[in-house]
Amino acid sequence: MEAGEGVSGATPTEEMNGAGNLMDFLDEPFPDVGTYEDFHTIDWLREKSRDTDRHRKITSKSKESLWELIKSLLDAWSGWVVMLLIGLLSGTLAGVIDLAVDWMTDLKEGVCLSAFWYSHEQCCWTSNETTFDDRDKCPQWQKWAELMTGHAEGAGAYVLNYFLYVLWALLFSFLAVSLVRVFAPYACGSGIPEIKTILSGFIIRGYLGKWTLLIKTVTLVLAVSSGLSLGKEGPLVHVACCCGNLFCSLFSKYSKNEGKRREVLSAAAAAGVSVAFGAPIGGVLFSLEEVSYYFPLKTLWRSFFAALVAAFTLRSINPFGNSRLVLFYVEYHTPWYMAELVPFILLGVFGGLWGTLFIRANIAWCRRRKTTQLGKYPVLEVIAVTGITAVLAFPNPYTRRSTSELISELFNDCGALESSQLCDYINNPNMSRPVDDIPDRPAGPGVYNALWQLALALIFKIVITIFTFGMKIPSGLFIPSMAVGAIAGRIVGIAVEQMAYHHHDWIIFKNWCRPGADCVTPGLYAMVGAAACLGGVTRMTVSLVVIMFELTGGLEYIVPLMAAAVTSKWVADAFGKEGIYESHIQLNGYPYLDVRDEFTHRTLATDVMRPRRNDPPLAVLTQDSTTVEDVEALIKDTDYNGFPVVVSRESERLIGFVQRRDLTLAIKNARQKQDGVVSSSVVYFTEDAPQLPASNPQPLKLRRILNLSPFTVTDHTPMETVVDIFRKLGLRQCLVTRSGRLLGIITKKDVLRHMAQMMNQDPESIMFN
Amino acid sequence: MEAGEGVSGATPTEEMNGAGNLMDFLDEPFPDVGTYEDFHTIDWLREKSRDTDRHRKITSKSKESLWELIKSLLDAWSGWVVMLLIGLLSGTLAGVIDLAVDWMTDLKEGVCLSAFWYSHEQCCWTSNETTFDDRDKCPQWQKWAELMTGHAEGAGAYVLNYFLYVLWALLFSFLAVSLVRVFAPYACGSGIPEIKTILSGFIIRGYLGKWTLLIKTVTLVLAVSSGLSLGKEGPLVHVACCCGNLFCSLFSKYSKNEGKRREVLSAAAAAGVSVAFGAPIGGVLFSLEEVSYYFPLKTLWRSFFAALVAAFTLRSINPFGNSRLVLFYVEYHTPWYMAELVPFILLGVFGGLWGTLFIRANIAWCRRRKTTQLGKYPVLEVIAVTGITAVLAFPNPYTRRSTSELISELFNDCGALESSQLCDYINNPNMSRPVDDIPDRPAGPGVYNALWQLALALIFKIVITIFTFGMKIPSGLFIPSMAVGAIAGRIVGIAVEQMAYHHHDWIIFKNWCRPGADCVTPGLYAMVGAAACLGGVTRMTVSLVVIMFELTGGLEYIVPLMAAAVTSKWVADAFGKEGIYESHIQLNGYPYLDVRDEFTHRTLATDVMRPRRNDPPLAVLTQDSTTVEDVEALIKDTDYNGFPVVVSRESERLIGFVQRRDLTLAIKNARQKQDGVVSSSVVYFTEDAPQLPASNPQPLKLRRILNLSPFTVTDHTPMETVVDIFRKLGLRQCLVTRSGRLLGIITKKDVLRHMAQMMNQDPESIMFN
Repeated sequence: MEAGEGVSGATPTEEMNGAGNLMDFLDEPFPDVGTYEDFHTIDWLREKSRDTDRHRKITSKSKESLWELIKSLLDAWSGWVVMLLIGLLSGTLAGVIDLAVDWMTDLKEGVCLSAFWYSHEQCCWTSNETTFDDRDKCPQWQKWAELMTGHAEGAGAYVLNYFLYVLWALLFSFLAVSLVRVFAPYACGSGIPEIKTILSGFIIRGYLGKWTLLIKTVTLVLAVSSGLSLGKEGPLVHVACCCGNLFCSLFSKYSKNEGKRREVLSAAAAAGVSVAFGAPIGGVLFSLEEVSYYFPLKTLWRSFFAALVAAFTLRSINPFGNSRLVLFYVEYHTPWYMAELVPFILLGVFGGLWGTLFIRANIAWCRRRKTTQLGKYPVLEVIAVTGITAVLAFPNPYTRRSTSELISELFNDCGALESSQLCDYINNPNMSRPVDDIPDRPAGPGVYNALWQLALALIFKIVITIFTFGMKIPSGLFIPSMAVGAIAGRIVGIAVEQMAYHHHDWIIFKNWCRPGADCVTPGLYAMVGAAACLGGVTRMTVSLVVIMFELTGGLEYIVPLMAAAVTSKWVADAFGKEGIYESHIQLNGYPYLDVRDEFTHRTLATDVMRPRRNDPPLAVLTQDSTTVEDVEALIKDTDYNGFPVVVSRESERLIGFVQRRDLTLAIKNARQKQDGVVSSSVVYFTEDAPQLPASNPQPLKLRRILNLSPFTVTDHTPMETVVDIFRKLGLRQCLVTRSGRLLGIITKKDVLRHMAQMMNQDPESIMFN
Repeated sequence: MEAGEGVSGATPTEEMNGAGNLMDFLDEPFPDVGTYEDFHTIDWLREKSRDTDRHRKITSKSKESLWELIKSLLDAWSGWVVMLLIGLLSGTLAGVIDLAVDWMTDLKEGVCLSAFWYSHEQCCWTSNETTFDDRDKCPQWQKWAELMTGHAEGAGAYVLNYFLYVLWALLFSFLAVSLVRVFAPYACGSGIPEIKTILSGFIIRGYLGKWTLLIKTVTLVLAVSSGLSLGKEGPLVHVACCCGNLFCSLFSKYSKNEGKRREVLSAAAAAGVSVAFGAPIGGVLFSLEEVSYYFPLKTLWRSFFAALVAAFTLRSINPFGNSRLVLFYVEYHTPWYMAELVPFILLGVFGGLWGTLFIRANIAWCRRRKTTQLGKYPVLEVIAVTGITAVLAFPNPYTRRSTSELISELFNDCGALESSQLCDYINNPNMSRPVDDIPDRPAGPGVYNALWQLALALIFKIVITIFTFGMKIPSGLFIPSMAVGAIAGRIVGIAVEQMAYHHHDWIIFKNWCRPGADCVTPGLYAMVGAAACLGGVTRMTVSLVVIMFELTGGLEYIVPLMAAAVTSKWVADAFGKEGIYESHIQLNGYPYLDVRDEFTHRTLATDVMRPRRNDPPLAVLTQDSTTVEDVEALIKDTDYNGFPVVVSRESERLIGFVQRRDLTLAIKNARQKQDGVVSSSVVYFTEDAPQLPASNPQPLKLRRILNLSPFTVTDHTPMETVVDIFRKLGLRQCLVTRSGRLLGIITKKDVLRHMAQMMNQDPESIMFN
């Protein structure tokens, strides 16, 4: 006997991969073999080995002719082509969304007379009559009241503007929710929890489809423009993943393999964050840290490519008109001092508390929405929340404008030319005014006024965001979270600044803050606060700091950001391990096996496997004594996804595992196309069926659909190891044996259920991970 | 029966973890249990489950008293403490190394009269008599000839300087190689191949020890100062890992668990690269992409912390005297143009070719060193290479100085105030001289002179580096590789610049290079060339680009860098998949299972497992019929690391696996301490030993050291899946079964051997991965 002969000849591996090998009794391959049903989990190992087969076939064919060689080269390059296309499309979409949001946000307040498709900023840029002092005023841009009544000022104009502001907001949000309801229900929310679940190997058909892409893009513009407390960052990740899925369908390498498809989607998620913030490296790390499940090094490199292409596409569209890549570009002129770490850490604590509060309140509200009447009126809910938001937002200048503009202003250092209220400091008339290095000054009335408005805006944002996230419109929460943190940070920053100015003889300021020096940058506090709040909600760490690093472009401020991010994560983790995405995954009951949860209980495989003690015995097939009828009855009576095959019921020795789907298809086809297969035909999973007398019904040989290498563990295996195996190998199920006898089965759902159970039993233990 | 009772009571998991549970018949625990022998592979699953046990114990104890609670909190924080310490120490060491190298490199040429411990630069900084034009000349700094003979110029002075330069170089390198030989043989080389192997789960005792740390630090300074063509970056990673190992020993959490220790080492590697280049993010990605094997998200975050602390420690030492974090700080004033991608890609091709040439030639030379007489005279070899290097390097100003200074100059843009030969352009007298934006100018004689010298330096570096890397002194190859690329890049850059100046009517220049404009930055070409060559040798991708991004601090130049890095990787990969580190791992025969190699052959577990066809049967133990004598004979006759335990030789049903080491220890101890255990005692691996008549010898119960959850696969499992399992779960061995019967065993070494075999059979297939 030669090596490998024991497994019957030439194509041993193909035989093993079960599906896709029914062709010996089928004329045409049928479309469903090897695919998965909706809301089912994929088998990573099977997908991987199918891809290797495909790859092997192409490689061996490539030696036959030049054409095949070219085809194989094209196949090898298709991954890069897909990345390029994803980068181009998602960059373009992000640019279009930015431009449209800009325009529509301003449309709520007024219109550009010279060209109605210009936003306020563009309108006044193109105008020659703009003065340097107030760039925001130019005759071409007219508020609605001015345009309609001719009066720009006065109570009447204010009321009319107010009314139209609310009206536009309601119109936009109504359009958004209606489009989502009618055309693409999957377009709502941020999409990140679902994408995490999909990337971990779950099938949700249509979630990344063309309709979702189209509707999400359009409704995202509407939702953001309506002034609701939501951001475009999360949905942009969803949009980029839809692009990824779209381009997957161009190449059979990706469209026909769920594992390979997920590699592309991971890269697409990186491209999404890259365009959301203009931070390609941060995007890749976000995909790696937060979203992806299976992230080989090859994907790292391709993600980076996609993220860069996307960022450069966006930059060449140049929606912010400043040829900057990043959303919030900041430049500070003073370093930070050790003593400032105290307020930074306090901001971290605030961020952690905000994260905890937000997650708990939002999950409670979403649960309420799911379980009560509330969930039945999504359109009304959106209209109501928009109405409240718009009515409350208009009077306060800090909430009236778009949230990203607000954050941008809060991050900014007060230069000499700044005209904003926040920079209304009392200048020392004796001092010359250098452009950059302005010493700390006492706050003027404008600053105190701004502080009050900011405090009100903070409360408003905190409350309204809880009710906004989770409605049936596209909604991200990066921007609202950052806004909350930026407001809190700026308030703290101004407080520290004024303390340092008025009390520079205090011991804490003495060493680093001489009078007349520029010691405190309130904008930096806003940035640190934003990082802390975002960290508290999402529990991002490295990617968060890297995104912030890319925004500021210097390592100088990484220590404050890290201090805040670490504190916020620790504080938030003390109240509950899960970030907002994991909480939503749990709320929706998706089968997601988190890479980060450590399983530290001492249960064994035997405690988790089915059948449980008093259950009926495990449904198994035998290799040579089950009839077609028996099999059909078993399929009808149970709803398991597959059945173990044993030598005999007595010995219980496992020989393989057969998928329910494959079994059904095989029997159906055999009955139709193979003569002599009747209900009493015996099903053989052995290598050779015995020669039966002619009177007996024709046997049905099904070894080809049998998976001869099912995954097994012994009943004594610690669940910790089992969880590890499920996670790292991406299994769907695992069989449990003892001394070679089949005892039971553990599926991914059993594992998840057991983990949830253990977590609830012993909630304290999770604090020490 | 209650759930879990089947596994005998209270501590089911501990029972399973084999070692560490011999205490029931031992009075004191003995030191070696649960550790590994030198040059053995660790079992990741076992380490992980041991850590979980430890963690569980601490958690449950923490509820008993306040002291225990504090202890458990300290334990939870120890990871961060270790990171902090690593960052501080490796940052400090890097700073000290930088300062010492600076001083000793200059010592080869002369000495500072005002304070002999000042380097040339420091000497002239502190001097008041430095002129602005030539910062490098000051009366305090005297060359050796000047000091000894009083003549600074002339042939005699030149010869004397030359002679002393060579003498110092020989002295330094002799000291370095002697120290390595006498005190720490492991301190030689770059260390990265060994660290990769250690991180993948191999034990090399002393490789990261205190002596290695001390000697490597000292000899690194000597080796770099001697002017040999080597860099400090790789060895700095080794030094940082030694620091990591040192601090591990402070905490039993890390010192007693080889798995946890490797988490710390991964982070230390990141800190090493972080201080080598001043690029913390790049360092983390380098650790992730290039060095680490098991890199959970928790490690990512901690690595980042360690890398940042290290970078900031280094910055506060400020060895470069410019308060910059990075090694080569550059700032360019002109953007790049699309058409320039052609030379950038050509540089990428050059980098790829250089990588291939270097790897092949260096490996051939190292193999020669291993197999011939050459390897017996390491000191002589070092002396010879140093002598040749110094003699050839002195006459050429570009090789005489230290390699990092050279790279720094090549990267620099020619500003208006630059006095270097490379910036000797002919200025248009009619043009005013703005500081930054200088138009392209015709090259002067200095530039042409420099070009010749650079070309000679290029050939010299290429040849000498091949012979230098791998000698018995600390030697990194980042810097030499970058130097080769930077020289080539600068030459190409100047060529393109002059072409563009003289022929701006050519169609390729017409669109973007008007006369009088500053179109081409030769420094950027040098940078792109350096990235390409480094990429070709190491096959780094993302981390390379990120390190370069951190050096330039702007996204502007990422596209050229990526284009070159990608091209260089593709070109180099076409000639052979392996980078220099993997090649050295293979050359040294370390058991390293590369994460990146894809295994695409159709072999099955049955083709790889032992025993092979004509081998004697597998050495197994039975659960209740082997005597102590039999076991001892088996241990003596075989050298396997462990033995499967089966129900009986007839049924061949597997029940567990026992480690050779544990078995030896257990029998030895039982014979010493347990009465009645003699050679004819039967060894029982069952739960209960039967009641034997008193006349029979006392049985020896060894279930406690039996691993009841050995890993099994069926004989039909594709090797692709087996390789995946070994990689992802970090197994040492895996048992092969068919229908519940034990057939054979596959160890990590079998897998590696099989992979190497397959690779050689079908070298073409690797091109398509």
